[in-house]
Amino acid sequence: MRRQVSSQEISDAVRRKLHERGVSMHDIAEIVYEMQSPYNPDLRMEDCLDSVLMVLRKREMQHALLVGMELDTLAEKGLLSEPLQSLVQADEPLFGCDETLALGSVLGYGSIAVTTFGHLDKEKTGIIRRLDTKAGSHVHTFLDDLIASVAASASSRIAHRFRDKEEEDNGNGPNHAASAG
Amino acid sequence: MRRQVSSQEISDAVRRKLHERGVSMHDIAEIVYEMQSPYNPDLRMEDCLDSVLMVLRKREMQHALLVGMELDTLAEKGLLSEPLQSLVQADEPLFGCDETLALGSVLGYGSIAVTTFGHLDKEKTGIIRRLDTKAGSHVHTFLDDLIASVAASASSRIAHRFRDKEEEDNGNGPNHAASAG
Amino acid sequence: MRRQVSSQEISDAVRRKLHERGVSMHDIAEIVYEMQSPYNPDLRMEDCLDSVLMVLRKREMQHALLVGMELDTLAEKGLLSEPLQSLVQADEPLFGCDETLALGSVLGYGSIAVTTFGHLDKEKTGIIRRLDTKAGSHVHTFLDDLIASVAASASSRIAHRFRDKEEEDNGNGPNHAASAG
Amino acid sequence: MRRQVSSQEISDAVRRKLHERGVSMHDIAEIVYEMQSPYNPDLRMEDCLDSVLMVLRKREMQHALLVGMELDTLAEKGLLSEPLQSLVQADEPLFGCDETLALGSVLGYGSIAVTTFGHLDKEKTGIIRRLDTKAGSHVHTFLDDLIASVAASASSRIAHRFRDKEEEDNGNGPNHAASAG
Repeated sequence: MRRQVSSQEISDAVRRKLHERGVSMHDIAEIVYEMQSPYNPDLRMEDCLDSVLMVLRKREMQHALLVGMELDTLAEKGLLSEPLQSLVQADEPLFGCDETLALGSVLGYGSIAVTTFGHLDKEKTGIIRRLDTKAGSHVHTFLDDLIASVAASASSRIAHRFRDKEEEDNGNGPNHAASAG
Repeated sequence: MRRQVSSQEISDAVRRKLHERGVSMHDIAEIVYEMQSPYNPDLRMEDCLDSVLMVLRKREMQHALLVGMELDTLAEKGLLSEPLQSLVQADEPLFGCDETLALGSVLGYGSIAVTTFGHLDKEKTGIIRRLDTKAGSHVHTFLDDLIASVAASASSRIAHRFRDKEEEDNGNGPNHAASAG
Repeated sequence: MRRQVSSQEISDAVRRKLHERGVSMHDIAEIVYEMQSPYNPDLRMEDCLDSVLMVLRKREMQHALLVGMELDTLAEKGLLSEPLQSLVQADEPLFGCDETLALGSVLGYGSIAVTTFGHLDKEKTGIIRRLDTKAGSHVHTFLDDLIASVAASASSRIAHRFRDKEEEDNGNGPNHAASAG
Repeated sequence: MRRQVSSQEISDAVRRKLHERGVSMHDIAEIVYEMQSPYNPDLRMEDCLDSVLMVLRKREMQHALLVGMELDTLAEKGLLSEPLQSLVQADEPLFGCDETLALGSVLGYGSIAVTTFGHLDKEKTGIIRRLDTKAGSHVHTFLDDLIASVAASASSRIAHRFRDKEEEDNGNGPNHAASAG
């Protein structure tokens, strides 16, 4: 017998697991602020936080986070079969599945999201670096890329909305062209 | 001197050019209806039309349509340089740029959008087939793929919203998890 | 202490696990033959088999197969944490991570690969259907999409090589333009 | 009457047009060297040049370059219709079609290619910066992203081959797992 999982249950699980893995909404919003404030001097941290929360409501992003954190946790406990266990544990640069899973959601937020994701993946800003270099027995092979994906998506979302707002202020009326809605 | 183009001007141009190239909103909505009505018996044509209009408000989709229709029109008039003129005119199956441009927007609507796009590109339903086989001097190399992209995106959007609605009706409260918003 | 896993060990594991999950190279080659023989009347099954083997040598494809079969197997044993366990077990149509993981490799073989993947995902030909409908306790949520990805990639590879060959036969000399090399 | 364009004619046109637009193979190879030499101290400029040439033989990359340079040239001459003319001429950051067209090919070279592309698009190294800031009447809206795509693909190709070579030297025998072949 199969049960249908509600969106609420999924949202709650994503939040709880992110917290357990050491990532707060504020950590992600900080990256968004760093990425977007140069282009948007009036940007406030709460706008960034709102944008992160909106991205985290998207179904496929939630699922990707659940899959990625599950694989990281299983690798941490040594519960994956070989050779996958060694590949995930070593955060092997040519592994690729971590970026692929993360990229799925990024592509939904337009080309700025993709280039920001590439940049974050290479520069490893803020919480992404902390996850990437975490000492000892922790494995964050999937989570660092997924956080880069959330931050890049939230950044692109702000860039598009900022542009919409500029136009509205210029009297062109509301036209939420950025929204995938 | 560079001028900033307003979203309104872009929206209007997309509508006008689609009309000139022989594509109505209703043509696209018909494909959406055909794709989604088997999963959703209460679906109405006006829901499909609304979904198409929402997809057409997305900035990158509008830009892709402008680029694609421009290249088709230039090829029709023989104004592209060789060998691109021959490649576009012949709708060469290994050309690829038509699908790439169309895929950019599809990826934003989740994996159902991608598989529906692949299906439409192969089956060429409704207006897509009419564009693909249009007699004489017309070139629709880019437009048929772009219409498949709009229809696939609008279909995926309906599938996600239908699921949200099911959950709300089950008392799980509003949780617009499908929206990239 | 981290060990570097050799390509040979990964290739062997992929083959062994595909066999354990009930998929033979011949099953995949049959889909490729069905997809490509209409365009290429001289196509032989052994060409399709060769193409499948070449696709399976690609590093990211191998990794994706290992990740997908691991998640399927864990779900079969009830070893994933909730709510992921229920999502994977139910092969929930809006789950999306299965297609995303599969799409990563498809995108490497050009736009024909993407549209063929979409088509296979919807039509569920041959072994893909057998996996999708397998009775009882089996879970193939990830594997059916991954097999569609291998078959679509191998099909696109043949389409490109067939075109190269046509040109060589026409005296244009070898120019393996299809090869990502 | 439609003529089939030979791969040789396309390759020649790509080379000639890149030269006309001010881009040499050496310019692109320099970016590849800068990206990959930190990970591979024995890397020589001629390896980078070879890798660029291999990427430029891929059919969809050639087509994307022809489309992009055509649109840039038409915009330079003011020959696109409005509002596309203004969008391309202004290299509008939210335009997106330039990155989408470039991304198609990048995705074929694995996740390292995607992150390198994102990095190059943001940092604008070497010839990419020179194109991006070219004075006066030149338009390189599409070309700078396409060059980033070629350089990122050639870099990823080197990273995969370097890893293959390491394994061969360790006695694991040839196993060109990186090749999309």
